[in-house]
Amino acid sequence: MSFNDLMAAYAEKINLYLDKCVPDSDRNIEKAMRYSVAAGGKRIRPILTLASCEMLGADSNRAIGFACALELIHTYSLIYDDLPCMDNDVLRRGKPTNHVVFGEDIALMAGMGLYARAFEVVLSEENAVKLSDAQRVAGMRVLADASGLNGIVLGQVLDIDNVAGKNIGIEDLNRIHNLKTSAMLEAAVKLGCIAAQATDTQTSALVQYAKAIGLAFQIRDDILDVIGTSENMGKSIGKDKESKKITFVDLLGLSAAQEKVAELTVQAKQALSSFENNTFLSQMADFLCGRTC
Amino acid sequence: MSFNDLMAAYAEKINLYLDKCVPDSDRNIEKAMRYSVAAGGKRIRPILTLASCEMLGADSNRAIGFACALELIHTYSLIYDDLPCMDNDVLRRGKPTNHVVFGEDIALMAGMGLYARAFEVVLSEENAVKLSDAQRVAGMRVLADASGLNGIVLGQVLDIDNVAGKNIGIEDLNRIHNLKTSAMLEAAVKLGCIAAQATDTQTSALVQYAKAIGLAFQIRDDILDVIGTSENMGKSIGKDKESKKITFVDLLGLSAAQEKVAELTVQAKQALSSFENNTFLSQMADFLCGRTC
Repeated sequence: MSFNDLMAAYAEKINLYLDKCVPDSDRNIEKAMRYSVAAGGKRIRPILTLASCEMLGADSNRAIGFACALELIHTYSLIYDDLPCMDNDVLRRGKPTNHVVFGEDIALMAGMGLYARAFEVVLSEENAVKLSDAQRVAGMRVLADASGLNGIVLGQVLDIDNVAGKNIGIEDLNRIHNLKTSAMLEAAVKLGCIAAQATDTQTSALVQYAKAIGLAFQIRDDILDVIGTSENMGKSIGKDKESKKITFVDLLGLSAAQEKVAELTVQAKQALSSFENNTFLSQMADFLCGRTC
Repeated sequence: MSFNDLMAAYAEKINLYLDKCVPDSDRNIEKAMRYSVAAGGKRIRPILTLASCEMLGADSNRAIGFACALELIHTYSLIYDDLPCMDNDVLRRGKPTNHVVFGEDIALMAGMGLYARAFEVVLSEENAVKLSDAQRVAGMRVLADASGLNGIVLGQVLDIDNVAGKNIGIEDLNRIHNLKTSAMLEAAVKLGCIAAQATDTQTSALVQYAKAIGLAFQIRDDILDVIGTSENMGKSIGKDKESKKITFVDLLGLSAAQEKVAELTVQAKQALSSFENNTFLSQMADFLCGRTC
């Protein structure tokens, strides 16, 4: 199968499972939760979980609960990211943001519900058949760490403070995006490793890969915020400029930012060199770094 | 020891552990998390966990991680409850609410951080020594269920819809408060049962106890909202009237509401009849139902 076909096959599997994670209902709360889950995106994080698990020689069905739990947490973080008291964004993935459609109160509750549901999915009977209690404990530690004070939360808080005039340097920006973006990509591969019972060496190599594509992904995002169009991106463009947030393009310039992305892509692929069957994850690095949306 | 001394001893043990759950820091995010955790309250939920565990003959040190995780989740739900898009409350436990002090964005992130931290506490190495992986998996399922779509979240959502003019009856109100309040008290005793490896019969009896005191607690809250003073309660009084929320006092009248509380107290104590050493939990039922703040 081609890379694109594999991506589509993974995404379909993930979407089917996610659809079962939040029950359909006439109530606004379930509608709000399902709205943001279904709004989609490329499902990069859960795909990384499944693909890592498979590259390590294990059945990716073992990892599907972990993968979808991570996507539920990612979805919840996006809902909160868009709230009026945060980025106050009205457009996400080409659709009105959750609070625009359902109101701030329901959006807030939908986020809480999605976060709890992430753990409920991992803790479900179905997952008990596929994974040992020790694996589930390890997986939940990864999920809690990536989404907690030392992950998304601190990344968001530092990002709130990222405004022009403050003395933000490249190290600070690396740190913010390591926490905001890379932490979740690292979590994705770690979950695949736990499901596949990888060795520490294998896990370290995949974490290096995730760190590199995480940073590349964010720099590429900043580049697209400058050169992309709102139509391609499915979200408001030029937001960073408008909100006066410092970006990698501000600090490095467009050309050096593009070079940095290319460099990180090479690093990411090198991190995979000890694995057989690394074609898909290697192509994923190219895909993320060359994406136009 | 007297009931009051026991309550104080439990609270001290819990406060010491909670103090370690969120690191001290100069950053606003940790300050905000610690602010609401330290704002205190009576620690009813974690005390129920420790006391249930002890009544069942087990060392309550096994349950301290569970107990504090539940309190962290309770704290996070209160921060969100007070937000401008929810109850828009400026006073909680006699102090300005979290978003009043730290701003809405930090309050939102503090809530996320506290929720993640609850799971991190259960998943910590320290807890691995005290509890098996199976116990931790069972405990986290209780935590996720009580705080998720079928617990606090749905309770809040139904409460948002609870406005005068809507046809809210006693059954609806029971359901809202079962989800908002009793679910967390049930979780408290279930966690004590898991830590103490209780039988199903023991767990069922303690859940009956928690359901009764949960409802009594909420009716008492509604009564205090009418007859209490802001000074005693440490929060804004008459909010329900102001926000036009239907309360048990509206539906039952003050006198019948007071009778209902007494009835539920008797039921709660009856649920404890098969246990030896039930004095503390029995007194807790009296305490909750007779409280003036």
